[in-house]
Amino acid sequence: MPDTRLEAWRGLIDAELERALDLDDSPPRLRAAMRHAVLLGGKRMRPLLVLASGALFDADDEALLSAAVAVELIHAYSLVHDDLPSMDDDALRRGQPTVHVAFDEATAVLAGDALQSLAFDVLTRAAVDPASAVELVRTLARASGAAGMCGGQALDVDATGSRESVDLRALERLHAMKTGALIRASVRMGALCGRADADALARLDRFADALGLAFQVRDDILDIEADTAQLGKTAGKDAEQDKATFPSLIGLDASKARLSALVGEMDDALAGFGERAAALSALGRLAVERNH
Amino acid sequence: MPDTRLEAWRGLIDAELERALDLDDSPPRLRAAMRHAVLLGGKRMRPLLVLASGALFDADDEALLSAAVAVELIHAYSLVHDDLPSMDDDALRRGQPTVHVAFDEATAVLAGDALQSLAFDVLTRAAVDPASAVELVRTLARASGAAGMCGGQALDVDATGSRESVDLRALERLHAMKTGALIRASVRMGALCGRADADALARLDRFADALGLAFQVRDDILDIEADTAQLGKTAGKDAEQDKATFPSLIGLDASKARLSALVGEMDDALAGFGERAAALSALGRLAVERNH
Repeated sequence: MPDTRLEAWRGLIDAELERALDLDDSPPRLRAAMRHAVLLGGKRMRPLLVLASGALFDADDEALLSAAVAVELIHAYSLVHDDLPSMDDDALRRGQPTVHVAFDEATAVLAGDALQSLAFDVLTRAAVDPASAVELVRTLARASGAAGMCGGQALDVDATGSRESVDLRALERLHAMKTGALIRASVRMGALCGRADADALARLDRFADALGLAFQVRDDILDIEADTAQLGKTAGKDAEQDKATFPSLIGLDASKARLSALVGEMDDALAGFGERAAALSALGRLAVERNH
Repeated sequence: MPDTRLEAWRGLIDAELERALDLDDSPPRLRAAMRHAVLLGGKRMRPLLVLASGALFDADDEALLSAAVAVELIHAYSLVHDDLPSMDDDALRRGQPTVHVAFDEATAVLAGDALQSLAFDVLTRAAVDPASAVELVRTLARASGAAGMCGGQALDVDATGSRESVDLRALERLHAMKTGALIRASVRMGALCGRADADALARLDRFADALGLAFQVRDDILDIEADTAQLGKTAGKDAEQDKATFPSLIGLDASKARLSALVGEMDDALAGFGERAAALSALGRLAVERNH
């Protein structure tokens, strides 16, 4: 188990995020809101996936850290906007007040917007050849946009309060876009930094797709089984908002069985990489076994 | 006067925007909101600046159109977010209901977010060498972010309702960030597509900075002198919101004199380019003489 390696990576990621958010040429209040959104914690799952995927191909550490930071900035901006009163209306995130509560709504909108710009700016400074940098930008932009994360969130907004109309297939599509696209991009971007071939990319896509879905199934289970203090965000919101979830559609036991099957799929997809995939595999387990 | 040329360019830009917003792999409602934000009109000043600047250096038309579309997508997303209830709270834009009115607030936030991602995606497909594509992404990302457009908007939000506390210098800095940065980026991106040298870029920056400021001074004057039907957006909002403007700080006559001085600066900056700068020069005049 490469737990100490993951810990070391987390330290590198946090230091690099801190550097990216130095921003001394920006208005202080906006800068403070951006830092609040990113630096107050978080599992760093997506940037860790970038590093773990890059490790399969001996990718350059500096390049991987730029890609890792960019992905986490996109993730952080999406949380700031998802928490807005007009969206999920959540006051608590990672055990802290959300950005629109700690600052104000306008600042939260702008901080999210500026974090997205910053993500692409960071990628242009990645220590890779220009053609690879362009590919990193394209991968992240597509995963974030209307056919990816934003599109999934739009489906989620439309579906909230109308559980009856969403079936399992629609729910899986929603999550494949809302959380899956960025998780897949994280794994891909690490591999792109290491110039992985098409076969390796295909196997990593399979791993990432199983992981993305497993992450969401676990999230839905935790929303039922965990409490607010443990989650660091409001528990029981799904049922309260009448949201379609895996447990609401197929039941809690079947959701847990599905989670086990997805673990099998992840192991299967990584089998060909041997010992080098230990870190990726560990991240898959963490997503499935986490309690918050 | 290259008015027919500008008209032809406008047609090319609108066709390319339409193509970029085809998006048949995205949720229909989000897609409709994104199209509403971009395709219902607009002066297209920023994309026209990209094309006019590129024309100085015989840049490739296809490359310029990608850059032009990317800049307009960023501009359009910023308007969608600026119009939100938590920001300027405006119900009318280009004579049409704003996105959060025509759709809903959550969809407006997400449509803006997805337009930003799309801008960077479009740039990765620009017909330029990869190193230039990276430079285009960097230029647009910096101009859009915390030290540029978003930062200026954050200063504007903080200043609204506190006219007393903003002096002329602070107002100019605010506008240099809020509108100036993207106008400068537009001119630069056209020049980058044509591989302009450092001297030409410096002269174009001077032109763009004068134009950006002139555009805002004209905006402030129009908010007083024009009516809502003519503007296609709510007139008289600045005074109503107690916003610092050039007329409120230095008076209407001095604002008009300042506008004339800025026209002189623009002409001066373009002088060395000769006849080839006719389109850029015409765009400068349009910004200053426009009635909406």
